[in-house]
Amino acid sequence: MGPSAPQDIFSQHFNVNRGMRERLNGHPGKVIWLTGLSGAGKSTLANAMEMELHRFGRKTYLLDGDNIRSGLNRDLGFSDADRVENIRRVAEIARLMLDAGMIVISAFISPFRAEREMAKMLIGPNDFLEIYVNTPLRVCEERDPKGLYRKARQGRITNMTGLGSPYEPPTAPFATFNGSGEIAVEQAARDLARAASLI
Amino acid sequence: MGPSAPQDIFSQHFNVNRGMRERLNGHPGKVIWLTGLSGAGKSTLANAMEMELHRFGRKTYLLDGDNIRSGLNRDLGFSDADRVENIRRVAEIARLMLDAGMIVISAFISPFRAEREMAKMLIGPNDFLEIYVNTPLRVCEERDPKGLYRKARQGRITNMTGLGSPYEPPTAPFATFNGSGEIAVEQAARDLARAASLI
Repeated sequence: MGPSAPQDIFSQHFNVNRGMRERLNGHPGKVIWLTGLSGAGKSTLANAMEMELHRFGRKTYLLDGDNIRSGLNRDLGFSDADRVENIRRVAEIARLMLDAGMIVISAFISPFRAEREMAKMLIGPNDFLEIYVNTPLRVCEERDPKGLYRKARQGRITNMTGLGSPYEPPTAPFATFNGSGEIAVEQAARDLARAASLI
Repeated sequence: MGPSAPQDIFSQHFNVNRGMRERLNGHPGKVIWLTGLSGAGKSTLANAMEMELHRFGRKTYLLDGDNIRSGLNRDLGFSDADRVENIRRVAEIARLMLDAGMIVISAFISPFRAEREMAKMLIGPNDFLEIYVNTPLRVCEERDPKGLYRKARQGRITNMTGLGSPYEPPTAPFATFNGSGEIAVEQAARDLARAASLI
């Protein structure tokens, strides 16, 4: 507003900011960034982590293909350019929710190091925790929860991460989760939340 | 995950949902959609409303040009098509934050009835409260907080809402706020928050 408007007094000095929202929430915000192959167990771990955090009264939100690809990013496909834009927007939303004082869990394949680095820079390195959901391609392909590997083997889809398109593992993740199924996911979720000082 | 993965047991049944987040927050989520000319006082009212809601312990977030145009929507300009996409994305973010259990205040010109209707449908009519910040163009142009009207009169920008591009007032807003400056904005913010049963 212009300096002559009486409302200015309020708009300049009384904005609610991240610190105030975090104090109200009773905990700092954070972004937990899960990365790994399709079928690695990202959504499973993300859900278990959100349950655990919620149980401790943390204000959480989970960003994944279910609520992003069908909504905000419904205009995007799976070309390299669209994948980069997909992750850019996810990072921007995570940044807004972080500013809102929330603990955001992001569960996308996010196969390229460069785009995860972009996300980290947009969000801020101190608030960005990368977790590598490390499950062998063989196991992911056996599970094939969305039937994507089968379609890719049949040539019906291209650019499948792990087959036609590369997956670049994190070089220095905050933590690595073995998604092969031998470890109880609830225990892993608790351990990760504790390691990140979130509970 | 595929039905053979042991993690499935958890991912299917223990997802945190909107109702759980709202219970944790202690209040329902809602989207307050402010619309009006540039300089009408949307940001001022939005800030005052957020302050008032925050004071009552409500979990809030404010979406406006400052945090959207410079981030998520930095790839968009001001053509009619880009304005529609701008509002679509704002509505999608508001929907996600509503799902996160928050009270979202959106402060964009959003000049077209059709795009506000799209936002209402995306968000859900019951959770969408339209507030018309009604300030005469003459007053807005006098304030000209961003110098946009002057630039538009000089022909340096086109599509300025109110001059080169139309503003379509709401036909049945939840409430109308006279942004001319005669009314104390804090009192108006409180009245609006009460009228919307948010405090």
